[in-house]
Amino acid sequence: MSTVTSPETSAAAQRALETRYGTPWSAPLPAWNETLDSLLAHRSVRNYADTPLPQGTLETLIAAAQSASTSSNLQTWSVVAIEDPQRKARLAALAGNQSQIREAPLFLVWLADLNRLEAAASRAGASAEGLQHMETLFVGVIDAALAAQNAVVAMESLGMSGVYIGAIRNQPEQVAAELGLPPRVLPVFGLCIGYEDASRPAQIKPRLPQQVVLHREQYDAPSQQDGIARYDEVIGEFQTAQGQSAAGWTSRSLARWRSRESLHGRDRLREALNALGFELR
Amino acid sequence: MSTVTSPETSAAAQRALETRYGTPWSAPLPAWNETLDSLLAHRSVRNYADTPLPQGTLETLIAAAQSASTSSNLQTWSVVAIEDPQRKARLAALAGNQSQIREAPLFLVWLADLNRLEAAASRAGASAEGLQHMETLFVGVIDAALAAQNAVVAMESLGMSGVYIGAIRNQPEQVAAELGLPPRVLPVFGLCIGYEDASRPAQIKPRLPQQVVLHREQYDAPSQQDGIARYDEVIGEFQTAQGQSAAGWTSRSLARWRSRESLHGRDRLREALNALGFELR
Repeated sequence: MSTVTSPETSAAAQRALETRYGTPWSAPLPAWNETLDSLLAHRSVRNYADTPLPQGTLETLIAAAQSASTSSNLQTWSVVAIEDPQRKARLAALAGNQSQIREAPLFLVWLADLNRLEAAASRAGASAEGLQHMETLFVGVIDAALAAQNAVVAMESLGMSGVYIGAIRNQPEQVAAELGLPPRVLPVFGLCIGYEDASRPAQIKPRLPQQVVLHREQYDAPSQQDGIARYDEVIGEFQTAQGQSAAGWTSRSLARWRSRESLHGRDRLREALNALGFELR
Repeated sequence: MSTVTSPETSAAAQRALETRYGTPWSAPLPAWNETLDSLLAHRSVRNYADTPLPQGTLETLIAAAQSASTSSNLQTWSVVAIEDPQRKARLAALAGNQSQIREAPLFLVWLADLNRLEAAASRAGASAEGLQHMETLFVGVIDAALAAQNAVVAMESLGMSGVYIGAIRNQPEQVAAELGLPPRVLPVFGLCIGYEDASRPAQIKPRLPQQVVLHREQYDAPSQQDGIARYDEVIGEFQTAQGQSAAGWTSRSLARWRSRESLHGRDRLREALNALGFELR
């Protein structure tokens, strides 16, 4: 993998890092390459052009997804690729009526899939007691997330864009019925994929300063406050530039967790998991 | 992002796809680029050279990680970077005595972090009832996984290698104590990072055929059996080439879930979560 450090790539690195944090980057500039450029330029894109995806796109993204690590090679995930407009519309209705699900040419629902090995155990007459534990669901959720993120990196490297849809967990049983899922398969999140509508572009959203999320040797709670205060200002400016009210990060985020109701139905995820066959021991 | 389709890159794509699946690739070859090459070439590497990481590596990986999507921009993850040999040794002892934790120059523990917003709520005198629900832990785990995978893609693009350590969940309370974690922060997994020891190289592990994990419009259970049977042969050959017994995938995987004991302590993850302050409502 080439790691060029010409003046041009140094400038690209500086620009990418400053845009990602919305603040000047004063630390030494690291080695840089095309992949880092693509990773740093990520934006969640909700508006798509009416352009079909090239043949073979789905297979490429799945090959990238399957190349991600998976706990003990168990491969406890699956994905359903949806292109049928009616099914996309029904899934959109189940996921907070998000129009991007209808608009994207391709909608992927990523699944934590404990059924595949359960069925294999059943065919082999083998016990699969481990399935009943919280841990195996965690393995499935993490496997699905690692795979999906590789697909996102792959599609963005190919010039496509997308957005994750956490609202697929608003009504997991109904989504499972729509997709014909067997027991012990959880829709973890959705992913819209398409080409961005250049007339309605999304911007790179600045993130928390590194000092807030990165800890050295041990967790450092006190030093986070300053960084959060600065970030509230940075994100406030970003919100203003986007024509939103400059609420900042803290108050926006707290509103999401204020009450059971602010979870938009996801307060009953545990019941839904039980209904889908997860014992969660 | 360049997407070259010269004969050379077509050959690279063909080679990458055939190695990833351990079978011939007969579908049309997709567009290809450096990032896809790096993604497809992923290997879990457990043997490291005695080479320090270049200055600025950690900051680059964290910038890549923070560029990943995060649910509603809540950024419910943190990471602890560990370089102290004694601390690495103590963490290795807590995580199944995996020598790669001691050997890697950098060990990252990725955290689902609900404490940051809880502390902000507490400072603001705001309610944070949503915290008590299973859903918010899921958000933290997924956020952490997406971020970590971006860091993996970044470090592999820079010529480094690594391996995830799920065994960090064997004894979560002890890991939390070692890292000084406040309540409602879960160690999700570890990640070893270093330069591979070229004298002990790891191989690309073939994955399940696409037909087994990729479903069109609805979940397809019956067609998975054939693909799994073929994969048992492919992975059997891989195991033989690695000097392991050719147990195949199905029997190896079922052994992991056979009993409560085969989870290596992770059968008590739910109790550990409760002890760490997660109500899981």
